[in-house]
Amino acid sequence: MNKKMYELGSKRSVIRDLFEYGRNLAKEVGEDKVYDFSLGNPSIPAPDCVNDGIRALIENDATVIHGYTSATGDNGVRAKISAYIKKTFGFELPSALIYMTTGAAAALSITFKALVDDDHDEFITFAPFFPEYKVFVEAGGGKLKVIKPKDENFGINVDDLSTAITPRTVGVIINSPNNPSGNVYSKEEIIALSETLEKKSKEYAHPIYLISDEPYREVVYDKIEVPYVPNYYSNTIVCYSWSKSMSLAGERIGYIAVSPKATDAGDVFFAICGAGRALGYVCASSLFQRVVANGIGQTSDIDIYKANRDKLYNNLTRLGLTCLYPKGAFYLFVKCPIESKDFCEKAKKLGILFVPSESFGVDGWVRIAYCVAPDMIDRSLPAFEKLVKECKE
Amino acid sequence: MNKKMYELGSKRSVIRDLFEYGRNLAKEVGEDKVYDFSLGNPSIPAPDCVNDGIRALIENDATVIHGYTSATGDNGVRAKISAYIKKTFGFELPSALIYMTTGAAAALSITFKALVDDDHDEFITFAPFFPEYKVFVEAGGGKLKVIKPKDENFGINVDDLSTAITPRTVGVIINSPNNPSGNVYSKEEIIALSETLEKKSKEYAHPIYLISDEPYREVVYDKIEVPYVPNYYSNTIVCYSWSKSMSLAGERIGYIAVSPKATDAGDVFFAICGAGRALGYVCASSLFQRVVANGIGQTSDIDIYKANRDKLYNNLTRLGLTCLYPKGAFYLFVKCPIESKDFCEKAKKLGILFVPSESFGVDGWVRIAYCVAPDMIDRSLPAFEKLVKECKE
Repeated sequence: MNKKMYELGSKRSVIRDLFEYGRNLAKEVGEDKVYDFSLGNPSIPAPDCVNDGIRALIENDATVIHGYTSATGDNGVRAKISAYIKKTFGFELPSALIYMTTGAAAALSITFKALVDDDHDEFITFAPFFPEYKVFVEAGGGKLKVIKPKDENFGINVDDLSTAITPRTVGVIINSPNNPSGNVYSKEEIIALSETLEKKSKEYAHPIYLISDEPYREVVYDKIEVPYVPNYYSNTIVCYSWSKSMSLAGERIGYIAVSPKATDAGDVFFAICGAGRALGYVCASSLFQRVVANGIGQTSDIDIYKANRDKLYNNLTRLGLTCLYPKGAFYLFVKCPIESKDFCEKAKKLGILFVPSESFGVDGWVRIAYCVAPDMIDRSLPAFEKLVKECKE
Repeated sequence: MNKKMYELGSKRSVIRDLFEYGRNLAKEVGEDKVYDFSLGNPSIPAPDCVNDGIRALIENDATVIHGYTSATGDNGVRAKISAYIKKTFGFELPSALIYMTTGAAAALSITFKALVDDDHDEFITFAPFFPEYKVFVEAGGGKLKVIKPKDENFGINVDDLSTAITPRTVGVIINSPNNPSGNVYSKEEIIALSETLEKKSKEYAHPIYLISDEPYREVVYDKIEVPYVPNYYSNTIVCYSWSKSMSLAGERIGYIAVSPKATDAGDVFFAICGAGRALGYVCASSLFQRVVANGIGQTSDIDIYKANRDKLYNNLTRLGLTCLYPKGAFYLFVKCPIESKDFCEKAKKLGILFVPSESFGVDGWVRIAYCVAPDMIDRSLPAFEKLVKECKE
């Protein structure tokens, strides 16, 4: 048996432990006194286009709808995505360079497997970062290097990137809107990143791919713009998912898009097809491919997350906690006013469950997932007040 | 970029080529004069429990139904599968050893990744075999050894297996009902296989796992019994899929079951969880997990395939072709009366598309997939008659 796989499968995750702690606590003190902010599982329903779309599809075309699509995805579906990208971002993405996937995790795993050619190959990402990147890169045969943030704005640390890139660097991974910080990278940051990557690609005479992991693209507030990365950097591969935007996390539906401006775009796409095949991804769900394409552009009611964000941000800052103002995603990044471990322990005892930032590669913060029922936030506020008071004692 | 992945993704498959040849021919001679028997894509609708189940689920529980389940699968779903296995095969399979997957391809890929510990590790299978086994085993880091059939019954060649097993053998893969031969292994064959594996496991002092790939378990005719492998061999891992039994090939839903009698069953299960995670499989479709569990035991109308089988088998043998009598799956294995390549070429010119057996590791046969509309078989018979006549010229 594979020891590394055994370790990955048997090691209990922080979030899983929190979840079980919460279940047990609920039995003791009551469900309404546990405030679980640990999971990024959308709690608001999918937009109507999802269930209406499912009903219409199974009504009209029952035989074909559950059969195989081609491995890259249904052609009509890919054409709709291509047209949407053109309309929304003004970018010409040929449908022939779109590969439908079983969610963003599959998209990332397939991309790393496609790009890694030997076990010295490296990817770079910026902390705080989604910890599964390390798992996926290593399963693909490569190594992940993590760049620490420059400051507490958690922007792209281009200075350190410049020295971190080596001849072995195959790609850089960004995630904006960001899990866990809630940050959204500005156009200026994407341009600076792009310039560094272009310079380094030239210096080492090979393309450095920019993997833009975008499951939170539409989960943004105050009409903030999320720059469309292929508009700024040629060697971009977008990994997208409808998990968050349409509350379809359990259905696993997303895509990989290779920019047509990328070096060897067609060959990279072939390697992606090969990697998808090798990893056992025959096709993305035939039904859900059609559902998301028919409803493309629609989202769950993001205003609910916005109201959650405002309530939580305003109340926690009022209590004196330092919070990063979330521009997108549904996470609030809060600085621990005392030793991180003690802060989390005190919170747990009060029924407040959140994830320590150490899991995401930075020290001394916690991630509060506010994709929860609004009334849980209301109920949690007295507990937060108590927590802050206890921290001062 | 990864050269092997590029090759896997860019190499055109025989079946894909046939498909495109068929599309072009249809434009020339008309849709009704092309008889495409190349694809194993079920053409009969899913049983009513599928679409009725979907409607009920999205009606009653719209928020949770599309959210994440745990990585191993929804607990209620796993309990239903466990109960069904107990009732149907009299085997106690704890739900804690069931891991829900994105179809059988995912189940196999995850299993190989979980079991392979170093790149000398070997798996063995019996020709004719599903060619993706090689792709999945190699992606998992192992090697696939193929045992040639003993005779034209295409049973389990236990004699050659005995000498093929080495200290590096980690597992043996069987597929019954078989793609492409339509054969179903008897109880006696499974017992003989089991005895050999037990003897060799002892000799080399490590477990040899038997991976039973069972997407066609319920697709059998004349009430033939498909032995439930865990009843005969302890170190069994079942890879199951509803792709064929419920005509859900495009929705990708299946499971891995580790026999509780297997050596280190719990640890193997952990390695499977780790491999699923590493390969980017977050969970199997939340909706389809519930759909198949609620309808468990129901199948598409297999009688249609049986009628297809009978018509095709009777007519082709009447024409003088040697066919293996299919006990299950929906493939007819036909011996080429002339040089295999010439036979396929002549057939193509007459609009008959089938897959040469060379793709499946044996020479001189073709696979006819009869999961097609019954009227296509009727229309194809004169073309088959012409084909046989041309072969005699």
